[in-house]
Amino acid sequence: MMAGGRSLDTIAATSIVTLCLACLHVTSLKSQLFTRLGGLRYTTEPPISYKTLYFDQKIDHFGFLQDGTFKQRYLVADNHWQQPNGPILFYTGNEGDITWFCNNTGFMWEVAEQLGAMLVFAEHRYYGESLPFGQDSYSDVKHLNYLTSEQALADFAVLIQNIKTIVPGAQNSPVIAIGGSYGGMLASWFRMKYPNIVVGALAASAPIWQFPDMVPCGDFYKIVTQDFAKSGKNCDTNIRRSWKAINNVSSSVSGLQWLSEEFSLCSPLKNKNDAVSFKSWLQETWVNLAMVDYPYEANFLQPLPRWPIQVVCKYLGFDATVSDEQLLHGVAQAAKVYYNYTGNAPCLNTSQTATSSLGALGWFFQACTEMVMPMCTDGVQDMFEPEEWSFQAFSDECNSVFGVRPRADWAGTVYGGKKIGSHSNIIFSNGGLDPWSAGGVTSNISQSLVSIMIPDGAHHLDLRYSNKLDPPSVRAARALELKYFQKWIRQAQKSTGTGFTMSKNRKNSP
Amino acid sequence: MMAGGRSLDTIAATSIVTLCLACLHVTSLKSQLFTRLGGLRYTTEPPISYKTLYFDQKIDHFGFLQDGTFKQRYLVADNHWQQPNGPILFYTGNEGDITWFCNNTGFMWEVAEQLGAMLVFAEHRYYGESLPFGQDSYSDVKHLNYLTSEQALADFAVLIQNIKTIVPGAQNSPVIAIGGSYGGMLASWFRMKYPNIVVGALAASAPIWQFPDMVPCGDFYKIVTQDFAKSGKNCDTNIRRSWKAINNVSSSVSGLQWLSEEFSLCSPLKNKNDAVSFKSWLQETWVNLAMVDYPYEANFLQPLPRWPIQVVCKYLGFDATVSDEQLLHGVAQAAKVYYNYTGNAPCLNTSQTATSSLGALGWFFQACTEMVMPMCTDGVQDMFEPEEWSFQAFSDECNSVFGVRPRADWAGTVYGGKKIGSHSNIIFSNGGLDPWSAGGVTSNISQSLVSIMIPDGAHHLDLRYSNKLDPPSVRAARALELKYFQKWIRQAQKSTGTGFTMSKNRKNSP
Repeated sequence: MMAGGRSLDTIAATSIVTLCLACLHVTSLKSQLFTRLGGLRYTTEPPISYKTLYFDQKIDHFGFLQDGTFKQRYLVADNHWQQPNGPILFYTGNEGDITWFCNNTGFMWEVAEQLGAMLVFAEHRYYGESLPFGQDSYSDVKHLNYLTSEQALADFAVLIQNIKTIVPGAQNSPVIAIGGSYGGMLASWFRMKYPNIVVGALAASAPIWQFPDMVPCGDFYKIVTQDFAKSGKNCDTNIRRSWKAINNVSSSVSGLQWLSEEFSLCSPLKNKNDAVSFKSWLQETWVNLAMVDYPYEANFLQPLPRWPIQVVCKYLGFDATVSDEQLLHGVAQAAKVYYNYTGNAPCLNTSQTATSSLGALGWFFQACTEMVMPMCTDGVQDMFEPEEWSFQAFSDECNSVFGVRPRADWAGTVYGGKKIGSHSNIIFSNGGLDPWSAGGVTSNISQSLVSIMIPDGAHHLDLRYSNKLDPPSVRAARALELKYFQKWIRQAQKSTGTGFTMSKNRKNSP
Repeated sequence: MMAGGRSLDTIAATSIVTLCLACLHVTSLKSQLFTRLGGLRYTTEPPISYKTLYFDQKIDHFGFLQDGTFKQRYLVADNHWQQPNGPILFYTGNEGDITWFCNNTGFMWEVAEQLGAMLVFAEHRYYGESLPFGQDSYSDVKHLNYLTSEQALADFAVLIQNIKTIVPGAQNSPVIAIGGSYGGMLASWFRMKYPNIVVGALAASAPIWQFPDMVPCGDFYKIVTQDFAKSGKNCDTNIRRSWKAINNVSSSVSGLQWLSEEFSLCSPLKNKNDAVSFKSWLQETWVNLAMVDYPYEANFLQPLPRWPIQVVCKYLGFDATVSDEQLLHGVAQAAKVYYNYTGNAPCLNTSQTATSSLGALGWFFQACTEMVMPMCTDGVQDMFEPEEWSFQAFSDECNSVFGVRPRADWAGTVYGGKKIGSHSNIIFSNGGLDPWSAGGVTSNISQSLVSIMIPDGAHHLDLRYSNKLDPPSVRAARALELKYFQKWIRQAQKSTGTGFTMSKNRKNSP
């Protein structure tokens, strides 16, 4: 069964977009990624500039019948690059517009000068402008057939080979893959599958083990719950209570109307199905808050205050004597912290949490094929309504929507699952507040497959611009990541005998 | 330009089979592999027995539109297997009938008892009985689209996962990949790409560097030439002379007739084009002899005497005063050593050297897509007519035959080319007599990426049954290979904590 509180039968009848909204285990990974092109970057962040380039990429790397190409977009910033042989930091784009990742990965911009590095941000096929079949890319499953992680990794490999060929001085440049979330999964897999192309990878908040039989399906929501539990008295308890309260209140037409008004919903709830969707939307809201529980005011999925869950929890401190209506009034205030921190939202839209555009469909297709990520809740160890994971139901849903069936074991087979110990030079960083750490690598596997935990960090906090409110743990993480980068670069230069020396070329070298 | 002495223009007008015969650089790898189902095994070899099984394999691992399956054949021999947790030796089938590889890989049968190992021989898709679309598999490029090495490796991975799931006691069995020639390339790539599935690989006579810009295109034929040079006085010189002699003699109708009779050709030569094909056939004959120059009587590509090139060279010892006719009479006698050692061949068939069946077309398709292996001759450092390598001409040929264009750089990108140093647990064994060693790994890359040279060995001699005439170098190679297997198995058991101990379970443990 899909998470989010709706039965599959209910979902099946609705549109894909609504369905995708409800499939939290699918969309919550996605939701943090989707393009908020209008999102403003922090005023404290330095201005960035890059060239936008396009590469003619094969549509199908794994077959020769389809020999067409498409324009893959990539962004290049080389103002700090020490040529020849200076390193390349390569962002393995995930499911969204690459300019958004570029703007939200301040860490790369901050270390570029120190490393004398070129920055490259490569867009993932089927997202942003990199559409293999233009406007037809999502028209049917035939056109979607080349949307896989293997194709995306091959794109990255071929693109890097091309850059090394055409850019003078880049031929021997060591390349480091960097990515967050699904992009982090790609970064680590890229190093595993193409160690000839990248000398190492930083996989930030990459849930590479959020696949069948690798981690308990309930851990994700447990972490969400813990974030709320420690951010305010009774906070998780009251969210746990809220579902029943919603059920009670929404059982009458007047109750539905009252709820709609309390939450300032753009589209008032009309029936039981709407109430189910409403609960899914709320659930995803709490998940998103857990992902972006940053220690400073930020605008990632939404404009939010510092430590937003603490702010949310101020409205959820009731004791057990609270009435349903009182409780839900508090929940509404809490939700508005997320959806209307700016005070500019005229109403709350339950068909969206932070996501928008075509990309949602792309990720849903990926979830319905390779990216099978089981999630479940029990209502005891987490604050959500109990819901089991059913692969069969999920598969049937995918089949009805796309005409494809997910392959539960494929990701584990092709990317190694827990048996990745023979690989090298990968940093897995995870935030203790981030629910995706449930599927992440959170302890060292070997001397060169290392885990960096950031106890006070939410979703890939380390990839963001540094901030004066950053906790020491993320500062230490970034410093360690930089040290590994330098080590990998030295290793690579030693093996190729290339002369670029960071310390010689850089005034500010550490 | 394609090797083999024919211009592409000539070739383009002929049938695919003839074309493929002429494309030595394509077919000579293949030719040693193709199924000689009627071939008798040595009487000194022990009888072998195995179960023939079939696995429902996905036709397309890298897309979800084509969700069909086909029956992949695999052979299992578990009479020596120590369950639970005994190792599995897994032959990564190459381009031919798997039963033939099974019968010709005596080394696996000989070490099975010592290791307490299960043997599995997996057939490569599109060969033998493992046809994704049955009789339509080769009907057009649409049906051929799933014939790639990546798909084959994925087949192996999924098959092993299945065996581990369904065979009691196999769940923690360490698996070692073993293969020869293209099968050896697959074995090494399998370890590189799926180290979660196989703990190590023996890649015997695997020319993983016979790709563009990795090794000089002329080295292959230089080794063939050296084999002849050291097997008899003037032997290479007279073969080098023979091409001009053929040109001279074949310039007249009576000369063509004389040549046809001297060589006992089944189809007499009628024109200049036939003479060109004839030279290609002879060239491939010398290549094949270099591949199977074994120290004992054997029947691999053909039934042959021990050290067959020495026997061949007995007919090619002329000095410079020899006439064209005398020289070609000697060449004919030499060719008959290869084609009629048994004395049973009524005539010699120039449309075949050792290959037969559909498989030839399959390998040609692979050469026309991923397996781009440049070869060239200069007539000075080798004994063949000069012929340059032209990717463009080859690509045009592939396009005209299949409607596909090869990707010159893809194999290097996806399999790492010379940058494979970060991998581990692979043995690259090569024979000094084997022309394919030109594209092989012939020196150690690291402590666990090791090269084993067998100076007196032809094409994967080490994979064959042991023989009392084996040179010490191949005995040493096999002993070392076995030691590495034992080391990898111990490593794996240590990491999984499984209890199987070779020395405890085996009486004959070394």
